[in-house]
Amino acid sequence: MKRSIGAKTIVYPAPILIVGTYDKKGKPNVMTAAWGGICCSKPPCVTVSLRKATYSYGSIVENKAYTINIPSEKYVKESDYFGLVSGKTEDKFASTGLTPVKSDLVHAPYIKEFPFILECKLLHTFEIGLHTQFIGEIVDVKVDESVTDANGNPDIEKVKPIILALSSKTYHGIGAKIGDAWSIGRDIK
Amino acid sequence: MKRSIGAKTIVYPAPILIVGTYDKKGKPNVMTAAWGGICCSKPPCVTVSLRKATYSYGSIVENKAYTINIPSEKYVKESDYFGLVSGKTEDKFASTGLTPVKSDLVHAPYIKEFPFILECKLLHTFEIGLHTQFIGEIVDVKVDESVTDANGNPDIEKVKPIILALSSKTYHGIGAKIGDAWSIGRDIK
Repeated sequence: MKRSIGAKTIVYPAPILIVGTYDKKGKPNVMTAAWGGICCSKPPCVTVSLRKATYSYGSIVENKAYTINIPSEKYVKESDYFGLVSGKTEDKFASTGLTPVKSDLVHAPYIKEFPFILECKLLHTFEIGLHTQFIGEIVDVKVDESVTDANGNPDIEKVKPIILALSSKTYHGIGAKIGDAWSIGRDIK
Repeated sequence: MKRSIGAKTIVYPAPILIVGTYDKKGKPNVMTAAWGGICCSKPPCVTVSLRKATYSYGSIVENKAYTINIPSEKYVKESDYFGLVSGKTEDKFASTGLTPVKSDLVHAPYIKEFPFILECKLLHTFEIGLHTQFIGEIVDVKVDESVTDANGNPDIEKVKPIILALSSKTYHGIGAKIGDAWSIGRDIK
């Protein structure tokens, strides 16, 4: 039996995306976002939605560039912290001891210690309501060698990304493999 | 050490969203999408990107309404199948034995057996490239009582959603809780 719970903004899973930018003074900053994901295959694009009130919003508008950093679960504390304080008043790299690295492709920093990085060039900006949606073209993906498989492909079980469950305000890890995509459904045909 | 793997469309985690629509003849149809997620809090909105070539694309344009159905992992075969065949030639409800239910709020069907449903009214359509992005206002969320906690909130560990790892073309389940959101990072401040 289904029950209505109202117009809640819940999708399972929601990602934890850490957005990296430089501010006007060139200070590297990061913030946590859960409203986003891939939105186009050609050009390869990722979307992330931010409130105008965030410090990172202005930096993206200014630089038209940002990184999306996927944390491993061992950085769950830092990833939560990045969403609790503002880069306007805090130096989030200094307080966490994490290392900003300037992207060689876009004017934005990424987090050296995080395993999986998307470097993005701002393509479109859509005003939706409380949130503004940024569509970024993925210029390159950089991956730690420690999280790749024998063929050099990133392995989700080594990346160990974080999942947000908004309903319970909890973070979760990745579970076991349950099937092969574009394959396990073939015997229904 | 980080290695460039090119402009790949990978974010961890990517969701498995089953999009429900009626075609012109009123036949219920569903398709699998992984490019999407929440994109605004007010109005509450969810985005999903489809290629124009899909049968569901025309149905969304026509009806300006659709549902997003979140599968439990026990429906991983059906969820994969929904992305392998087209509703133009197949009756995906008939072939899987799943049950279409007409939403009482929008002109779109949802899957009775799936635990978590978003009912959406099309707000915006953005052409990005190969994919068109649909922004839907979430009109209501309907949840199976079997996946709610004592307070009536949906519980991700009972929903057991499916995660897509595009890099390995595999589906994964949800792992254990690793922390409380808006909380675990507080001791860094």
